[in-house]
Amino acid sequence: MLDMDKLLLITDHSGYTPQISRLLSMMNYARFTTLEAVSDLSVEQLDFLLVAQSNSIGALLLHFAAVEYAYQIATFEQRDLNDEEMAVWGPALMLGEEGREKIKGNPLDYYLEKLETVRNRTFELFKTVNDEWLYREEEFWYNKQANYYFMWFHVFEDEINHRGQIRMISKRMKST
Amino acid sequence: MLDMDKLLLITDHSGYTPQISRLLSMMNYARFTTLEAVSDLSVEQLDFLLVAQSNSIGALLLHFAAVEYAYQIATFEQRDLNDEEMAVWGPALMLGEEGREKIKGNPLDYYLEKLETVRNRTFELFKTVNDEWLYREEEFWYNKQANYYFMWFHVFEDEINHRGQIRMISKRMKST
Repeated sequence: MLDMDKLLLITDHSGYTPQISRLLSMMNYARFTTLEAVSDLSVEQLDFLLVAQSNSIGALLLHFAAVEYAYQIATFEQRDLNDEEMAVWGPALMLGEEGREKIKGNPLDYYLEKLETVRNRTFELFKTVNDEWLYREEEFWYNKQANYYFMWFHVFEDEINHRGQIRMISKRMKST
Repeated sequence: MLDMDKLLLITDHSGYTPQISRLLSMMNYARFTTLEAVSDLSVEQLDFLLVAQSNSIGALLLHFAAVEYAYQIATFEQRDLNDEEMAVWGPALMLGEEGREKIKGNPLDYYLEKLETVRNRTFELFKTVNDEWLYREEEFWYNKQANYYFMWFHVFEDEINHRGQIRMISKRMKST
């Protein structure tokens, strides 16, 4: 995590350019709330399915790391995941049936370690680029141009979306 | 909505300073996905409760307008909602039992109109301030300082969180 004194500030962070700092401020807060939402969960709770077609909280946590890794590759290496990387991250990226089958039985630390490793790589990668890099554009969804700032916004936007679901699953799970 | 050609760009918008433009870019995309998630819902679907203690999709939509209104008041007038405003927005802000009791029976257009009215006011208000304003700080959660940029980040962050829940409710509702 970045400086906790700055948790509620969208501001500069030492070692990063201004816009990258602001992006990291938002990613950092999103991750803080994710970690808070799962802090006390057991293996059984991380594997819990609300209904047969649901994603478990564990699978959603691994999804965050997988999405972040995929956008590292997309924006820093301008490529898709290769077969070897898909073997590692595919189930977490896809979720659904493959996720339910392959992501289970892990304690919270397993997921936290993956999240931290990928996030630390993001911290290192972002030190090597500047604000100009954030505004590079590529064709993306709906045949529209997206800049790297948007793609990284989407990384934390997706995490917040699923964190909302994690909170809902957790509330339902604890009330049953 | 802002310029749809810029939907996937975190970038400048005419009439706004650079950082306010970036904030609006993110708010705009979040709202686009919200509208997409609810585009075809009937009154019955907007009122649907997954379980007795759930929030309906309609209540969550009104919550987005209420939260945005509350932060307009907090950051542009430096005050809390007064009694008259709480009579209007209280149930949507609080959700839960009060929300379930008072927010129901409305067609989609009812919610869309509230969302648009409040958002248009945000657009007007943001024209009157600049980037420096975004960095004003006040004591906020956890006895920490938050700047206005963070508070407005939280407005769309909260919307994305509940949009994730709307997607989940919608999927479950349509499969039952």
